[in-house]
Amino acid sequence: MRIESSKSGQVKHVAALQKKARYRREQGAFVVEGLKMVLEAPPDRILSVYGSDSFLEQGGRERLGNLSCTAVSDNAFKAMSDTQTPQGILAVVKAMEWEKKDFCKSGGETLLLCLENLQDPGNLGTIFRAGEGAGVTGIIMSRDTVDIYNPKVIRSTMGSIYRMPFAVCEDLEEVLRQCRNVGITSYGAHLAGEKNYEQADYKRPCAFLVGNEAVGLSEKISAAADFLIKIPMKGSVESLNVAVAASILAFEAARQRRV
Amino acid sequence: MRIESSKSGQVKHVAALQKKARYRREQGAFVVEGLKMVLEAPPDRILSVYGSDSFLEQGGRERLGNLSCTAVSDNAFKAMSDTQTPQGILAVVKAMEWEKKDFCKSGGETLLLCLENLQDPGNLGTIFRAGEGAGVTGIIMSRDTVDIYNPKVIRSTMGSIYRMPFAVCEDLEEVLRQCRNVGITSYGAHLAGEKNYEQADYKRPCAFLVGNEAVGLSEKISAAADFLIKIPMKGSVESLNVAVAASILAFEAARQRRV
Repeated sequence: MRIESSKSGQVKHVAALQKKARYRREQGAFVVEGLKMVLEAPPDRILSVYGSDSFLEQGGRERLGNLSCTAVSDNAFKAMSDTQTPQGILAVVKAMEWEKKDFCKSGGETLLLCLENLQDPGNLGTIFRAGEGAGVTGIIMSRDTVDIYNPKVIRSTMGSIYRMPFAVCEDLEEVLRQCRNVGITSYGAHLAGEKNYEQADYKRPCAFLVGNEAVGLSEKISAAADFLIKIPMKGSVESLNVAVAASILAFEAARQRRV
Repeated sequence: MRIESSKSGQVKHVAALQKKARYRREQGAFVVEGLKMVLEAPPDRILSVYGSDSFLEQGGRERLGNLSCTAVSDNAFKAMSDTQTPQGILAVVKAMEWEKKDFCKSGGETLLLCLENLQDPGNLGTIFRAGEGAGVTGIIMSRDTVDIYNPKVIRSTMGSIYRMPFAVCEDLEEVLRQCRNVGITSYGAHLAGEKNYEQADYKRPCAFLVGNEAVGLSEKISAAADFLIKIPMKGSVESLNVAVAASILAFEAARQRRV
């Protein structure tokens, strides 16, 4: 089978998955683009793979190994793709499913990131990528955070989307309460934090909270955190990029745990 | 004076400054957009300020204080602006000028970042912003790095563009040699680094080197660094976003210097 027309139902289905968070939720699926992202996808979650004529003719078919792939005219592929210059290969993937137990590791290794109302797709994806590198065991996002399956988010995770347990929660305060109940200490990154971030002990299970790009953590969530910490800043800098801040905290925990 | 037509010479001048690195170099000027960026610009470097009719009528005139500003029709302003939804205020600013002595601080506080061939404007701007926060004293970029006056770079510096000494160099190896001669130790961030980054002593003058988003530091520059260090990573993460990596290193130096 080969898809010629950019008006084909499958092309429209993929294009809608790229563009609409709501459609992604209804369908329980998302789209990943590029050979690396397609090859890294958990095979049992792949619903379909589409390759453009150009991609498949230029050695792409071989590089896909055993993956079965539907050929699509270059024109139709362009209509499916979220990028300006598509690589010519994408997959529709079943939404990830994580359970509570996936977020916690034994031996005190639990390290959570809680994100409140992050809006920039690049920041969210970068936090997934850096979080995995630092040994973060799970990421919890408030409902108003940008959709994790937004194509720009997926791209900037560089594959961590498949491996990092995550959840979207209705009530971040309730999550913090639950954390406390199981011995996970929460630290909110806040300009008004009393202590510098490196003065706390992150060797035990802990959770870092970071907030929206423009306004930071809300008062409600700041008040619900066990401690507020600050990343001290020189010069006239008012705040850090949120992906940078989350990474500094996560890698400080990793550093302390290596000592 | 008021500019009505989007074909006015001044509109074309500003639009060209936004779009063309070469024109910016020829003119020795760059464009900053938004009220915050305009108000933070060093007054003696501002060449001209343009405000859209809408901006000026809606209280903008008052918020500019003493700055004299040329009114521009909304239509003409759109042609000058680099953003989809312009704030309606921009300034043409004389290119920054820094001298060698600006990069070095007495008392061992010198902390340089050397960037090789960075291509993403958001990354470069984020490094300026985080670098200022960490106390970096200067940023040196290889000639093939994205232009610092690219509008996207300027936006993501959040004002650090005005305050962080920077230079573009023809030969990064030569810069490292000069660093060594004045007692600045250089550390290249490299996946093959022998030591974890936190095991080096950054209390003395030092320079961190980070490389291109896709390929990292070149072999030549890696070989020219005094030491290679690595940021150890868990999971299946191959590398970190370069702005995240540079920030982790700069804030580790800041942390050590606070102890």
